[in-house]
Amino acid sequence: MPLNNPLHFVTLLGSLRQGSYNAAVARALPSLAPDGVTITALGSIAEFPHYDADLQAVGIPPAVLGMAAAIAAADGVIIVTPEYNYSVPGTLKNALDWLSRLSPQPFAGKPVAIQSASPGAIGGARAQYHLRQILVFLDAQVLNKPEVMVGQVKGKVNAETLELTDTVTRDFISGQLTALTAFARRIGVPR
Amino acid sequence: MPLNNPLHFVTLLGSLRQGSYNAAVARALPSLAPDGVTITALGSIAEFPHYDADLQAVGIPPAVLGMAAAIAAADGVIIVTPEYNYSVPGTLKNALDWLSRLSPQPFAGKPVAIQSASPGAIGGARAQYHLRQILVFLDAQVLNKPEVMVGQVKGKVNAETLELTDTVTRDFISGQLTALTAFARRIGVPR
Amino acid sequence: MPLNNPLHFVTLLGSLRQGSYNAAVARALPSLAPDGVTITALGSIAEFPHYDADLQAVGIPPAVLGMAAAIAAADGVIIVTPEYNYSVPGTLKNALDWLSRLSPQPFAGKPVAIQSASPGAIGGARAQYHLRQILVFLDAQVLNKPEVMVGQVKGKVNAETLELTDTVTRDFISGQLTALTAFARRIGVPR
Amino acid sequence: MPLNNPLHFVTLLGSLRQGSYNAAVARALPSLAPDGVTITALGSIAEFPHYDADLQAVGIPPAVLGMAAAIAAADGVIIVTPEYNYSVPGTLKNALDWLSRLSPQPFAGKPVAIQSASPGAIGGARAQYHLRQILVFLDAQVLNKPEVMVGQVKGKVNAETLELTDTVTRDFISGQLTALTAFARRIGVPR
Repeated sequence: MPLNNPLHFVTLLGSLRQGSYNAAVARALPSLAPDGVTITALGSIAEFPHYDADLQAVGIPPAVLGMAAAIAAADGVIIVTPEYNYSVPGTLKNALDWLSRLSPQPFAGKPVAIQSASPGAIGGARAQYHLRQILVFLDAQVLNKPEVMVGQVKGKVNAETLELTDTVTRDFISGQLTALTAFARRIGVPR
Repeated sequence: MPLNNPLHFVTLLGSLRQGSYNAAVARALPSLAPDGVTITALGSIAEFPHYDADLQAVGIPPAVLGMAAAIAAADGVIIVTPEYNYSVPGTLKNALDWLSRLSPQPFAGKPVAIQSASPGAIGGARAQYHLRQILVFLDAQVLNKPEVMVGQVKGKVNAETLELTDTVTRDFISGQLTALTAFARRIGVPR
Repeated sequence: MPLNNPLHFVTLLGSLRQGSYNAAVARALPSLAPDGVTITALGSIAEFPHYDADLQAVGIPPAVLGMAAAIAAADGVIIVTPEYNYSVPGTLKNALDWLSRLSPQPFAGKPVAIQSASPGAIGGARAQYHLRQILVFLDAQVLNKPEVMVGQVKGKVNAETLELTDTVTRDFISGQLTALTAFARRIGVPR
Repeated sequence: MPLNNPLHFVTLLGSLRQGSYNAAVARALPSLAPDGVTITALGSIAEFPHYDADLQAVGIPPAVLGMAAAIAAADGVIIVTPEYNYSVPGTLKNALDWLSRLSPQPFAGKPVAIQSASPGAIGGARAQYHLRQILVFLDAQVLNKPEVMVGQVKGKVNAETLELTDTVTRDFISGQLTALTAFARRIGVPR
């Protein structure tokens, strides 16, 4: 892959809540990307029905097929998610359960970065290691470092505009996007 | 708790598929319980919407409230679930995400046993340790041993009647139910 | 078990360093215990050789046998450990590997609480969930809550005396010891 | 990296036992490597003292420095390990704890494959996911698939010669070595 080719990343959001802090993080990403990198949001995981192999036998839902195509076309995926009950939100896992049924597998060999934000000190760490284990099965290439775990997120987002305003956090996330860009250029993306 | 008081356990099923092998395991449980123990099935997790804090603010859905009440009234819970993508099914996690929002928490102090079945050799082990981490947050009392991980399940269920027929597996599961009964009697259940 | 019988807990320390912050936490425990509860330290895990089944065949080392007897005689165990490389220190795991070979198993049915301290924000959380999985095999009864993960520990310990001085942390740990005491009295300890 | 350049991998063994089944697997690897790939064994982790930051302050032991240099010079590492108590052996973790203290970090960006063998059905799966979490911290590039978890290993090794004789297992492992070779060539190794 040429060293400075433009890259396109997509974000997968694990929260459905309108005022979600993780959504605030995800919305900030396009403005934090390095030069030559564009970032857009995937569709909502709320559109996916509960995974059921009987339903799959009838036909994979269009929302799943659309998201799979967008992931397949991207140079990398950024998963931004809250932690629920020491793991990933069920609805996010449900989306991955659907996406896992596709062949060719859209995550296979795909560079992935993980970000999580939480009101507490731990910043979603527990969810991230569960997600990493899930992504082994999907054969994704998950960036190791830096790990973005935004603790005490309430103080880092403007309560009215829901913008991620904390500059230390913004810079740190920008650093991860730069690392993901270098990683994607280093390992390449199978097409 | 008196040593021989009758106990009532409920099963929580992680699969939606009609022909589910895990459903076959769950259906076998009432016939495998020790004397004095009854086991009934909780409602379907398919009825729960995707968890969304905005939806919760409007009102916790009746299906969630009903399941929470049934868990609260039981002496123990048996979670029977497939492994999807090296973790718990998203739909099962979604049910736990909803149940986690209730106070008093129905799982708090509740004896819980885990069972999983899979076509491969590993029998769902990876899902079980994720589930155990989730249940720390819910403050459940999870039975350690014996661990029921039914590998190669296709050969242990009658393909037509979908009955769990393998006698070694039935005996092993029966042993876990006996252990759960002793555990529930030992630790008691907070009411 | 009578409601107010005296209890004796032992601490297992995961760090060998003289100036260890986790050692500072462990040393504070006797003074933080509820009335009627005494706490003493187990021997050092530095005395255990690397686990080797060939060595075990020759004879389990006296240091292992001594620690096993002390655990067996206690009403509960408090494991206080740093996190190394997102997991438990190898030397602590080595001690558990040796202890796991004993029958009867000293941890079986034993109430256990986990504490970890770290210079960073996360306070050793990653080590704790690995430790919980290990303790499933050893059949310990691990307290769920409150979880003691002391972040930013450098500011909570007196640099000269190595005493745990932060009162919020001391109170929080005291709360866990009270919870462990109630848990041990509730579930009992098999002898 | 040229497509067919020769590669050199090193094996890190997690067991100390003379008759170790995992050692049998590790010894088989040179004969199972694809053309152009050589594989040699790292030194024994039994030589490492228990990790202690005070000891480190005096000087990192020569056995650690030697292993670190060998890893740094290799194109990839194959970790072959038993599972002890649902996690990695303490002695293997201790070796990684020492190696983690080196800068530059020998595992950083290094292609790594994991293999485990066990007498039971699960083949060491639980140890592998703990090891993967540890290797996130060390910034290794761990191969996703195929995962080598050799269950029922006793029947796959000649009891007298301790050779790995099972041809299905040998072929499967050979497939992993081929995948590791392709992975190392794809992602490259930072020097």
